[in-house]
Amino acid sequence: MRAIDVILQKRNGWALSPEDIRGLITGYVEGSIPDYQMSAFLMAVYFQGMSIHETTELTMAMAESGEMVDLSDIPGIKVDKHSTGGVADITTLILAPLVAAAGVPVAKMSGRGLGHTGGTIDKLESIPGLLTELDRERFIRQVREIGLAVTSQSENLVPADKKLYALRDVTGTIDSIPLIASSVMSKKIASGTDAIVLDVKAGSGAFMKTPESAFRLAEVMVSIGLLAGRETVAIVSDMNDPLGSAIGNAIEVEEAIGVLRGTIGGPLLELSLVLGTHMLLVSGKSETLDDARARLVGLINSGEALRKFEQMINAQGGDPAIVRDFTLLPKAANQDVLQSPRDGYLSIVDSQQLGRAAMILGAGRETKDSRIDPAVGIRILAKTGDSIIKGQVLAIFYYSHESDYLLARRVVEDAMNVVSEPVSKHPLIYGVVDRNGTHIRSLD
Amino acid sequence: MRAIDVILQKRNGWALSPEDIRGLITGYVEGSIPDYQMSAFLMAVYFQGMSIHETTELTMAMAESGEMVDLSDIPGIKVDKHSTGGVADITTLILAPLVAAAGVPVAKMSGRGLGHTGGTIDKLESIPGLLTELDRERFIRQVREIGLAVTSQSENLVPADKKLYALRDVTGTIDSIPLIASSVMSKKIASGTDAIVLDVKAGSGAFMKTPESAFRLAEVMVSIGLLAGRETVAIVSDMNDPLGSAIGNAIEVEEAIGVLRGTIGGPLLELSLVLGTHMLLVSGKSETLDDARARLVGLINSGEALRKFEQMINAQGGDPAIVRDFTLLPKAANQDVLQSPRDGYLSIVDSQQLGRAAMILGAGRETKDSRIDPAVGIRILAKTGDSIIKGQVLAIFYYSHESDYLLARRVVEDAMNVVSEPVSKHPLIYGVVDRNGTHIRSLD
Repeated sequence: MRAIDVILQKRNGWALSPEDIRGLITGYVEGSIPDYQMSAFLMAVYFQGMSIHETTELTMAMAESGEMVDLSDIPGIKVDKHSTGGVADITTLILAPLVAAAGVPVAKMSGRGLGHTGGTIDKLESIPGLLTELDRERFIRQVREIGLAVTSQSENLVPADKKLYALRDVTGTIDSIPLIASSVMSKKIASGTDAIVLDVKAGSGAFMKTPESAFRLAEVMVSIGLLAGRETVAIVSDMNDPLGSAIGNAIEVEEAIGVLRGTIGGPLLELSLVLGTHMLLVSGKSETLDDARARLVGLINSGEALRKFEQMINAQGGDPAIVRDFTLLPKAANQDVLQSPRDGYLSIVDSQQLGRAAMILGAGRETKDSRIDPAVGIRILAKTGDSIIKGQVLAIFYYSHESDYLLARRVVEDAMNVVSEPVSKHPLIYGVVDRNGTHIRSLD
Repeated sequence: MRAIDVILQKRNGWALSPEDIRGLITGYVEGSIPDYQMSAFLMAVYFQGMSIHETTELTMAMAESGEMVDLSDIPGIKVDKHSTGGVADITTLILAPLVAAAGVPVAKMSGRGLGHTGGTIDKLESIPGLLTELDRERFIRQVREIGLAVTSQSENLVPADKKLYALRDVTGTIDSIPLIASSVMSKKIASGTDAIVLDVKAGSGAFMKTPESAFRLAEVMVSIGLLAGRETVAIVSDMNDPLGSAIGNAIEVEEAIGVLRGTIGGPLLELSLVLGTHMLLVSGKSETLDDARARLVGLINSGEALRKFEQMINAQGGDPAIVRDFTLLPKAANQDVLQSPRDGYLSIVDSQQLGRAAMILGAGRETKDSRIDPAVGIRILAKTGDSIIKGQVLAIFYYSHESDYLLARRVVEDAMNVVSEPVSKHPLIYGVVDRNGTHIRSLD
């Protein structure tokens, strides 16, 4: 296999053999194929696409470029959930203890990542004392003992993706469905899960701006999962509004606890239940959607879901009292509110900008070396279509530095318009993609 | 200008500003834009193309990346001729003395290049004693004194093209019309010529395999030349058959001398006259095609064209006696012939393979560091469509090493078929592209 031949084949729209794809990834990770050939190949993929079989081969070659985690010591069907990323989306923090309480073993490896807030690991680290770097043995033991552990990803998980993603970022080759799908699925497959529930976001705060493109991505990822022998289901959900209200780290943990104890409802609870329901189904713990949902609601009402979270915090060395006493979480020095200047209806024109505002306050990483401030963030207190009265609080800012706050506030003001004409609300769920095909929900 | 933005703009099919293109080329030559971003950009250009204005801006940015030769000390309109490259094409060796004899100042800078035979410089170096590295002052003086000098290109001529070509070669981005056109035209423009006559080849031995694609390339190059203020004309000519009979270095010099002294005719003479005619027209030395052709034929018949070549050899320190005594040129140790195994008609199925066979003998460079053997080569003694009798000599091999010869012979045997049914001959000239448009010759 010569890299130039593989580039030319893809450029000319011919199919690549499994050997071509394996050779390319192996050579790239080893360093025998240089960045400049890989970036030309990636741009050719942007234009010519990849078949499902090519994409699956790429995914497996990437997954196998590093450590393949073996979770077979943990009994039961392990289910992992992955979201393509949105604003105020803390379903991972909610679902891990919730489905663990239902008896699904949760062995979650998570990243820190770049973005408007930290990754799941960064959010958990706002809990005083909590360890997120568990060695493999401790990690497995904890899942066996309490059914739940969350640890940061091994440095050696899918090195091909780390190298490829950094290259795509600077060569205009991020937004290609086969490249996005193989990046996500290679990490899931390498992390040793048996089944995968995907939350594919569509809207202004997500990578895929329309439900149509989100369904396309979902279909490719579900096909890869099934071809790789992992039961896979994708929910396509809205990201035109922030999902919950909190955008930050400590305040997101606080909101997750609110959902787990049953004091917070709305879209965040609803999407958590939808995703959790599918997790119970693919794990074999429930037979029907109705049964699964009833069990999850019961676990919240009984307090078992919250107790599972407390147990996990305790097992990982954190202070479990935070689930009752939020004052033990980091608090920002300053706080201020944004009030509506008029009566009307809310229109969130670009929810990604709300995430950007939180990043300006210090909640996320702009580069790999940025430091996250766990205390800062923004609460968004209304959704698109809500009726608003003059003076109503639309957002609360938690901040450290006045100058950051003033800039973030301007960004939020621009992203949240109060208009005189009624605005229609966004549906929460657009549909489901599973092994039986694509089911688009009728929107009423 | 950020490289990633320019890549995305081109990828998305939006127009690039002159500043974008300049910034990209300047940054790439300086090293602030890495190879991996440039290769992604080049692949995006492969798919999205470039407008004539973008291509011209690219050409000028490349030309101005290094030395811009100033020939203004030489009186008269300087005309340069460029061929896109073919097999047994020695029109440069013929035209330089021929049009110089007609009074057009010829200040030719030429390359060594990779390929099945050497470049013009390598061919000239098969003349004992001849210097091809003239310093700028001596070069200009020689043109002023005898109207003709040929020297190797400055190392600093269009460094952007050297760097880009090496990258395109390994990233599958060679065959893009705007990239080919800007590569050729940047070198012509940087070399200080006032007018350009292009010979764009079409056929199995050329880069463009069909007349249609050759016309497209010709149209782009002529537009660039005109937009850059250089009178430009392109001839689209056939390269399904080798143009002359000699493929090598010393044997090509010998064949050029044959044309200049009037003993060799056929397609090589005819194309030389067509190109030379247009060179006289754009230089203002002739008013009509008929007048120009008559002058060139007269200069061959009178011996003035050959005398001009002799004068040049003498001025550059070579042995001028070679124009009368070919035994003074390097001779290969061994010689053998290929004879037709049957009666029939010749079909040359892939003339590029004939070039490859000459390279196998040592006539060309495979890599920058290969050494050329000036004495070796092949003479091809028939053209497609010729009626052939059994035992007729189809080719003569001049070689140093038996093993090279046996391999080259097999390649030639495969490329030259003698078949029982008549085969139609290829036309020599497909048409002309000039400032008045594209004139496709009716093929009779």
